[in-house]
Amino acid sequence: MGEFDLIARYFARPAKRSPLGPGDDCALLAPAPGMQLAVSSDMLVEGRHFLSTVDPARLGHKALAVNLSDLAACGAKPLAFTLALSLPTVDESWLAGFSQGLFALADAHDCELVGGDTTRGPLNICITVFGEVPAGAALLRSGARAGEDIWVSGTLGDARLALEAFRGTLSLPAALFAQARARMESPTPRVTLGHALRGIASAAVDVSDGMLGDLGHILRASEIGARIDADAAVTCIGVSTDPDFAAAALPIEILRLCALSGGDDYELVFTAPASAREAVAQAARSAATAVTRIGQTERDAGLRLVDAQGAPITQRFDSFDHFA
Amino acid sequence: MGEFDLIARYFARPAKRSPLGPGDDCALLAPAPGMQLAVSSDMLVEGRHFLSTVDPARLGHKALAVNLSDLAACGAKPLAFTLALSLPTVDESWLAGFSQGLFALADAHDCELVGGDTTRGPLNICITVFGEVPAGAALLRSGARAGEDIWVSGTLGDARLALEAFRGTLSLPAALFAQARARMESPTPRVTLGHALRGIASAAVDVSDGMLGDLGHILRASEIGARIDADAAVTCIGVSTDPDFAAAALPIEILRLCALSGGDDYELVFTAPASAREAVAQAARSAATAVTRIGQTERDAGLRLVDAQGAPITQRFDSFDHFA
Repeated sequence: MGEFDLIARYFARPAKRSPLGPGDDCALLAPAPGMQLAVSSDMLVEGRHFLSTVDPARLGHKALAVNLSDLAACGAKPLAFTLALSLPTVDESWLAGFSQGLFALADAHDCELVGGDTTRGPLNICITVFGEVPAGAALLRSGARAGEDIWVSGTLGDARLALEAFRGTLSLPAALFAQARARMESPTPRVTLGHALRGIASAAVDVSDGMLGDLGHILRASEIGARIDADAAVTCIGVSTDPDFAAAALPIEILRLCALSGGDDYELVFTAPASAREAVAQAARSAATAVTRIGQTERDAGLRLVDAQGAPITQRFDSFDHFA
Repeated sequence: MGEFDLIARYFARPAKRSPLGPGDDCALLAPAPGMQLAVSSDMLVEGRHFLSTVDPARLGHKALAVNLSDLAACGAKPLAFTLALSLPTVDESWLAGFSQGLFALADAHDCELVGGDTTRGPLNICITVFGEVPAGAALLRSGARAGEDIWVSGTLGDARLALEAFRGTLSLPAALFAQARARMESPTPRVTLGHALRGIASAAVDVSDGMLGDLGHILRASEIGARIDADAAVTCIGVSTDPDFAAAALPIEILRLCALSGGDDYELVFTAPASAREAVAQAARSAATAVTRIGQTERDAGLRLVDAQGAPITQRFDSFDHFA
């Protein structure tokens, strides 16, 4: 199968909304009047962002999900994406699975593939996503003020628990491992929540490299600090609510590591004034997404970690760095 | 050096025109009222699109040039780009060269880097470029009519000559090899010409996989055929005008192969009615770019190749396919 057949069979679909979709030199996008276009690119590499054993449908889902998560963190509504794909071989069953997972998520968010590139080479997936946000309404990292609440959406740490189980550094009951693995391989971008938080959250970021590290981007951009309740973050671990979880008897240090700096969560961390608590709760209900309050912003720079009793925690947490 | 230091040292520059540049979850772009955004993505892989020996500054130039060439083929004015980069190691001298070559071309076209991604992995460069074009004014592949002129910009075939010299299948005098190699490693995107051809050309495509193959996209999209003067295309080989070229005594079959299906040219092939010849010449002068008339479109589908005397040529030419 040649390059153009491959594109035609697995990736070509008629453009619905874009003035010009795949198949010309460029795609054409026309944002509505008064709208800005939010743009983000993520590149996924085998062995770094996914294991070679991953189900291709889950990988197709994840490749787009991590990009939609960036739109969510800006409060932007997904419009379109481009896909550049480097493939070692033409494996039709892989392509069928990958494109099925990719388009299932794309269709769920009404986000259309408008162009891209395919080449032969080590497996690499690069998606650039486009969303729409009214001028001036995007959620930024720089809008937080001291004395605000710090919230996190959904669950934290499950992806890292699954990764550590894959690495053999810990062991999980089979059902919990499957649950955690699904969170690692098939994250849920919080697009609806991000959209609902426009005008409510003062700042937002998506959690990809680890919660504390990503929160750090808000703190630096907003020139403030924070106090985080590590044990409130640990309660966000999805599998921790399972009755079988206690039997795994994982040390609290491991749980804190996974929740606070696990990485690959694709949740939102955001700040909002205390006066907006009911509005945040309403936004969360409207998006059918749980949110948990895990700390407060403070005037003094830096991050202060405390346990459920307010006692300082000295354990160190590094966020993920591809080159560290 | 960590990931964020790497970005800060080599790629972070203040946003000039975009409402929000690198450093948040998304970049924000605001096309002017009435403008559409033209978008294109290209992925470059070592060993497929460039040799490991390439000068990193030339590679930085080329990675953006191949994307700008897609904007040129639409007649769009460059605005911004994202860069996703997978690097096997942090090689500071490579990064310094790559970013210098990249930004030199970006600055020449007033095209700003607004975001991206960096990761560790096999060397892979994925750029997504954004340009602006008035609604309805983009040059498409589908606008050609039978009986029009077929034109090509600049030079054809030099990149392929250099590649074949690298492969050892032919030999070129050193000065000619250097000239051809520069065309392969440092192509000139025809942005100014593409812009000048809006309203004049009926269809356009950029030449990346080989001229005949890329012209084929216009023919299929426009449901027409063409007659091409292969020897007129051969006169477009840049090094063929050098006095030392005759000494290389390359067979005409090789020259035709390089000119007609060489690939990596990043020139424009475009169609225009015969009544627009003076307008085409004027656009070419205004863009300081040579153009050569190499054939005519015809009602009958398919491609008919003739020599300078009008006799049919039976040599077959395949365009480049990453998976063929």
